[in-house]
Amino acid sequence: MSSTATRTPVAAEIDQWLTRFDEALTRGDAAGAADLFAPESFWRDLVAFTWNIKTVEGRAGVRDMLEHTLEQTRPRGWRVAGEPSRADGVSEAWLEFETEAGRGSGHVRLIDGQAWTLLTALNELKGHEENLGTRRPKGVEHGANPERSTWLEDRQREAEELGHTTQPYVVIVGGGQGGIALGARLRQLQVPTIIVERNARPGDSWRTRYKSLCLHDPVWYDHLPYVKFPANWPVFSPKDKIADWLEMYTRVMELDYWGSTTARRARYDEAAGEWELVVERDGEEITLRPKQLVMATGMSGRPHTPQFPGMERFKGDQHHSSRHPGPDAYRGKRAVVIGSNNSAHDICAALWEHGADVTMVQRSSTHVVRSDTLMEVALGALYSEQAVAAGMTTEKADMTFASIPYRAMAGLQVPVYEQIRERDADFYERLEKAGFQHDWGEDDSGLFMKYLRRASGYYIDVGASELVASGEIRLQPGQVDHLTGDAVVMADGTELPADLVVYATGYESMNGSVADLISPDVADKVGKVWGLGSGTAKDPAPWEGEERNMWKPTQQAGLWFHGGNLHQSRHYSLYLALQLKARAEGIDTPVYGLQEVHHTH
Amino acid sequence: MSSTATRTPVAAEIDQWLTRFDEALTRGDAAGAADLFAPESFWRDLVAFTWNIKTVEGRAGVRDMLEHTLEQTRPRGWRVAGEPSRADGVSEAWLEFETEAGRGSGHVRLIDGQAWTLLTALNELKGHEENLGTRRPKGVEHGANPERSTWLEDRQREAEELGHTTQPYVVIVGGGQGGIALGARLRQLQVPTIIVERNARPGDSWRTRYKSLCLHDPVWYDHLPYVKFPANWPVFSPKDKIADWLEMYTRVMELDYWGSTTARRARYDEAAGEWELVVERDGEEITLRPKQLVMATGMSGRPHTPQFPGMERFKGDQHHSSRHPGPDAYRGKRAVVIGSNNSAHDICAALWEHGADVTMVQRSSTHVVRSDTLMEVALGALYSEQAVAAGMTTEKADMTFASIPYRAMAGLQVPVYEQIRERDADFYERLEKAGFQHDWGEDDSGLFMKYLRRASGYYIDVGASELVASGEIRLQPGQVDHLTGDAVVMADGTELPADLVVYATGYESMNGSVADLISPDVADKVGKVWGLGSGTAKDPAPWEGEERNMWKPTQQAGLWFHGGNLHQSRHYSLYLALQLKARAEGIDTPVYGLQEVHHTH
Repeated sequence: MSSTATRTPVAAEIDQWLTRFDEALTRGDAAGAADLFAPESFWRDLVAFTWNIKTVEGRAGVRDMLEHTLEQTRPRGWRVAGEPSRADGVSEAWLEFETEAGRGSGHVRLIDGQAWTLLTALNELKGHEENLGTRRPKGVEHGANPERSTWLEDRQREAEELGHTTQPYVVIVGGGQGGIALGARLRQLQVPTIIVERNARPGDSWRTRYKSLCLHDPVWYDHLPYVKFPANWPVFSPKDKIADWLEMYTRVMELDYWGSTTARRARYDEAAGEWELVVERDGEEITLRPKQLVMATGMSGRPHTPQFPGMERFKGDQHHSSRHPGPDAYRGKRAVVIGSNNSAHDICAALWEHGADVTMVQRSSTHVVRSDTLMEVALGALYSEQAVAAGMTTEKADMTFASIPYRAMAGLQVPVYEQIRERDADFYERLEKAGFQHDWGEDDSGLFMKYLRRASGYYIDVGASELVASGEIRLQPGQVDHLTGDAVVMADGTELPADLVVYATGYESMNGSVADLISPDVADKVGKVWGLGSGTAKDPAPWEGEERNMWKPTQQAGLWFHGGNLHQSRHYSLYLALQLKARAEGIDTPVYGLQEVHHTH
Repeated sequence: MSSTATRTPVAAEIDQWLTRFDEALTRGDAAGAADLFAPESFWRDLVAFTWNIKTVEGRAGVRDMLEHTLEQTRPRGWRVAGEPSRADGVSEAWLEFETEAGRGSGHVRLIDGQAWTLLTALNELKGHEENLGTRRPKGVEHGANPERSTWLEDRQREAEELGHTTQPYVVIVGGGQGGIALGARLRQLQVPTIIVERNARPGDSWRTRYKSLCLHDPVWYDHLPYVKFPANWPVFSPKDKIADWLEMYTRVMELDYWGSTTARRARYDEAAGEWELVVERDGEEITLRPKQLVMATGMSGRPHTPQFPGMERFKGDQHHSSRHPGPDAYRGKRAVVIGSNNSAHDICAALWEHGADVTMVQRSSTHVVRSDTLMEVALGALYSEQAVAAGMTTEKADMTFASIPYRAMAGLQVPVYEQIRERDADFYERLEKAGFQHDWGEDDSGLFMKYLRRASGYYIDVGASELVASGEIRLQPGQVDHLTGDAVVMADGTELPADLVVYATGYESMNGSVADLISPDVADKVGKVWGLGSGTAKDPAPWEGEERNMWKPTQQAGLWFHGGNLHQSRHYSLYLALQLKARAEGIDTPVYGLQEVHHTH
């Protein structure tokens, strides 16, 4: 605890709470510790206490969690990091602490002297700290040594042996930004890992997308672990530029990345406690036997294409948005895009720019926020040049974000979107006047909650909405009934003549990839991936408190899911990597609160 | 000037000096400004006043410089940045200022209220600021635009056109770290530039060196502009790892890098004010017509191989150190390495490690410093993990180093090497007992001055000295007389049987490359490159005050030299890039004190 001579009242309040909390934990008093929380309160733990990603609620939740974890965790050395602050009746502070296994950091918010939120996060495992800064490798071994091998020889030997004469401890299926970020963490933790990717080169999953694609999130949100984008990096990365970055990052982080490799089938050998994973690499089948298998095939991994009568008769081009080659071939053609979320808007705008005649079929209402507005109002405080200038680091921004329990987040987001609604009132008026069905989420909590709950149902406007409002992109509401040889026919009989139909109809739950790779049984056993259990559209109740199956143990031993946007890939890859490293080192990792499965997809 | 309520005495002293200095400059009073300098004093200007890299000495030097530059420069807006400090009777402060053309920063040291040293450095040109941070590009153009082209299309078009239908403003000959760092600066400044490199890929000039090579300078010293090495980067980069980094850097900084391209011949067209540079690319001759030509072929660009009688008769392998393939093929063989500097030691040690019988021929005395000692004693304050932890940035370290005038530097280095001599007394005793001829530089100023004066004459010990001291590497003093079919014969008749002879005999002055590429006349006209004119071995008088011909205008219009170690490549690439950018934009750049040529090589 801090003991400066001139403590502020808020510092004293935090110190007092932390002292009592520490004392309760030290004497193994779960109930006593729980009593320091408010009746409505949240403790979010990222691996430090629970070997899980888990939010418990209220005093009963805290007490139960501690009763199951305290003896093993032995938390200690609590101290306040930096200066506590107070606003709107909430006192808050950054924390540091130790456990038996590692070192962690955290964040607490007090209301009337009781904890409203507590975040605890494991940062490193004792004895397995990353070789960074003062611990960085020397690179050269000084002195004379006839047994010396060079860095290049070591790298080449590893590439030759790993997966052949030696086995990786982890295989990551999917080498997009998620798999790469996790691979980098595991490399730093010296966990032998192979990343398996269908495409030839890192970044190809971006390169093969439609050509006008740029990231919809700004650069400050998108950093990978260890190597930050430089100060000249564009706010919104063009897809081929981020692809080059991923390729170079994979190289300089020395990842064992198997491109042009397809994961064919996998089976968990219960007796051996390992996977038998068959991959096809350069036409050859290779069997890998990792202890841990991470699915990082992406939330945009398995396209969802609806089946409409007559699709087989349609004579023009038709494809899912993920296969859309871009607009160049469609000048002067009639394009119908089914869907009204991000991809649909991007594709419609690019087609319009290239002189196609474009119709967007809106089947359900969509939430739209202008990109500039989102940056300024929703992200600016944590992820912006202004935040950087004010001393906000990426790591601190991530932890600040993580400190807000999901249950409380929706309520906190509502006023943000009220502000957006007011600021861009003209914009929304024009959009709705053009017939666009717009919503703010079922509880008016806006874009980020839609992302966390269902990862769909919105468009971050970078220009297409203006084309919709002006009628340049024609809007067709309603459901598709069937296709003819040259048209999409709506349920109300409206016929949309088409040379091209794009199904911008989204993606399936990531456990669909498990069904393909392992078995439908295992897919059902681990259940739906993503979503919080909010009971809103595409995110059925009951409440889960954390993203289903993401970055944490699942009902299938040795099976993990990794992904999310660049911010999540960056931040949660740390916790997943630490869970995998602990298992690789034989550290005991009793999981508290392993999630139950309520939905299979 | 700062005006805090509670100024320290040193702040007041600095403020008072700066106010008087500013007033003298503003009223165009060169003599008055010069009177604010001590009789023995130095003003080092990096492009801000002189459009040159120039140190003037004493009041007369300051006065002359100002009389020629003040009217055009119109310096103003002087202010102290950060907190001034005082130690050992010297008050010092960081400064910021503006000129007519740009914005700069600087550093001043006062003794008894008079300037002992002043550094002024141009940081950016007004109206041509780099697009970094808040000025970074947006990356995507929001809104709909039928004329839109993507980032990839723009990059591809540029690659197709530049050098063919459009001409680069600058061509950099040599794509090692120097050419790459300068290329990155010019790209940021939007100066169309092609880098021409003989090897296929960026980094190949490292990859093709002997396999055990690691950088002898530590990571904190080696950063490139814009993208810092990450915290996991080794202290001493293995050659293939730094090569991968350079390749990555070239890609993500979007440099127009022509690999597998050899510069064949160049001619300056006085009338057109441009170069006619013929390069061979993929077997095809292409004529480039840049306005500016930068030689970045490296101080290790043109091997110096001595001619000994009988070399043509020698039946074993013989090659210059730059062509040495590494030790693998020489197990059990007898190797004679001619030379006793860095490369000679590295090659001897690697050959010994691979079971060769190794003799080092020491023809003249060599200065040796142990790498660990050099890091701690000589570099630690500016370039180390401790320096980083204490808030030292790379940029501040570079400017601190630049603030010391070369004339004063040798004297300041002497005590550093006295400390090293004492600390490693045992080491030096053993080395000399083994017969190794050791020196500390002619004025005991040690390694860095040898580097600045002649870029040779030393070894940074990473292990070979122990092999020399123990006799594992045999030491042969004296001069080579001739070679026979299977031996090197010394002047005293000693015969050294050899299967391999390596000439670790250094490199020629960079104007040798000019003789090859342009003409011997132009090489003589620009004269010797590198060295300060210290009047010590290989750095003949008269005193020049700055490195000959480096990073500044030469006697040949449109011809420039860039290079040095990674620290110099990083820092001085800024000033060279600004000089080139100013010319590209037609800004008037009257050069003060263009160097005279006293030596042709």
